[in-house]
Amino acid sequence: MTFQKKLDSIIKKNNSLMCVGLDSSFEKLQKAFQKKDYPQFAFNKWIIEQTHDLVCAYKPNTAFYEARGADGITELKMTCHYLSKYYPNIPIILDAKRGDIGSTNEGYVSFAYTYLGADAVTLHPYLGKEALHPFLDQKNKGCIILCRTSNPGSGEFQNEVHLYKKVAKAVSQSWNTNKNCMLVVGATYPKELAAVRKMVGDMTLLIPGIGAQGGDVEKTVKAGLNSQNAGMIINSSRGIIFAKDPREEAKKLRENINKYRISK
Amino acid sequence: MTFQKKLDSIIKKNNSLMCVGLDSSFEKLQKAFQKKDYPQFAFNKWIIEQTHDLVCAYKPNTAFYEARGADGITELKMTCHYLSKYYPNIPIILDAKRGDIGSTNEGYVSFAYTYLGADAVTLHPYLGKEALHPFLDQKNKGCIILCRTSNPGSGEFQNEVHLYKKVAKAVSQSWNTNKNCMLVVGATYPKELAAVRKMVGDMTLLIPGIGAQGGDVEKTVKAGLNSQNAGMIINSSRGIIFAKDPREEAKKLRENINKYRISK
Repeated sequence: MTFQKKLDSIIKKNNSLMCVGLDSSFEKLQKAFQKKDYPQFAFNKWIIEQTHDLVCAYKPNTAFYEARGADGITELKMTCHYLSKYYPNIPIILDAKRGDIGSTNEGYVSFAYTYLGADAVTLHPYLGKEALHPFLDQKNKGCIILCRTSNPGSGEFQNEVHLYKKVAKAVSQSWNTNKNCMLVVGATYPKELAAVRKMVGDMTLLIPGIGAQGGDVEKTVKAGLNSQNAGMIINSSRGIIFAKDPREEAKKLRENINKYRISK
Repeated sequence: MTFQKKLDSIIKKNNSLMCVGLDSSFEKLQKAFQKKDYPQFAFNKWIIEQTHDLVCAYKPNTAFYEARGADGITELKMTCHYLSKYYPNIPIILDAKRGDIGSTNEGYVSFAYTYLGADAVTLHPYLGKEALHPFLDQKNKGCIILCRTSNPGSGEFQNEVHLYKKVAKAVSQSWNTNKNCMLVVGATYPKELAAVRKMVGDMTLLIPGIGAQGGDVEKTVKAGLNSQNAGMIINSSRGIIFAKDPREEAKKLRENINKYRISK
């Protein structure tokens, strides 16, 4: 099954465009979790149990696991395998922001798909399409290309030369032969989000930047929906996983998003 | 000690601008190594023992270790720790091509510097200076920013909008407050290499693309040297580590490079 089909069916089933970012930094975990044998995995399991009927995807960011070296990687693997086993219908987006030359990317393909069993990976566009072929060639796996990122300084190159538009154009018109490409566009720049939506048709967009980073839900949803009243994976990490009641926060965000989805 | 000082002193001591890329893909190792308990580490040790007096740096690429998951990460750590213990004067460049938003990059900083003990990391410029502060703020560690990469398709974005020049300008004029920034410029584009050298003064350039990728040594050295008759870290990975006699290959490349260094 393709990433897109898996995503479409869970969006319907859970009535949700919300993705929960498993940015489970060891330092930020409650003491009770920190003391466990597998602290990051135990925490993730707890979050997953509370939210699996509310999300359209989970998105672990590799940085928070690599920070602990091999131990963290082991717990990232445990998390992905847990999801694959108990919630095989929920796509796993590995937020790895990788991007090397062609032959080297094969190592990352093995890591993401063979070792972890993820369904999609986030990728830097800087080296061009040719370099990313090892990812693009995986027809059933998603390629989520950084386009307009959510961080305050993202405009330095992405805006000055309208680079994010060039990326959006190239990915939607040339890279997407396998219909497995998506784009990252930050919620913190709703105008650019609307511009990208105009350029890329119904392509799915991964949207970070809601919550802690300041992105506005209403503006984001209105700017980013596609003709199917969907086409977005709206991520929240810290705002949900480190909330007092993660399930309540997840419910609230899902509802808040759905409020602005035009009913058909 | 800063990365630059460490680099300068080993360039002198070993009379070498050559970096050996430890791209020790498990699949490519000789059977004798594949059978060992720690195959990638055993292989790297063997390469290091043959080349440590010939190089100015070692550059393991994370992709080849992550491909094996936690086991690979453990062997990458063993390799870096071995270098730190027995050859502390040789800088370790972690070729990780990372680049996330600010707070997330802290995880990668922990991975590269605390966990592995590397001396420098390769980084994507796409998210801008602001995002890379967790790296830029490490005064004694090197930040090697992708500028003009060596792969065939690198021109897609890097050339069309002269993006690589914008990156070279930004990094040399604005990002380099801590004097810890360098640039990646591929040997496969000697004209662009010369253009970057003109823009960035004596800044050190990491040069991949010699050998297997087709870069020419003479053109590369002539285009890339700085006013100190150095300023380059010229990498070779497969061409050395998978040669029949890695030491002979390493010697040959070092001599070939030095032939074109103008004697003062």
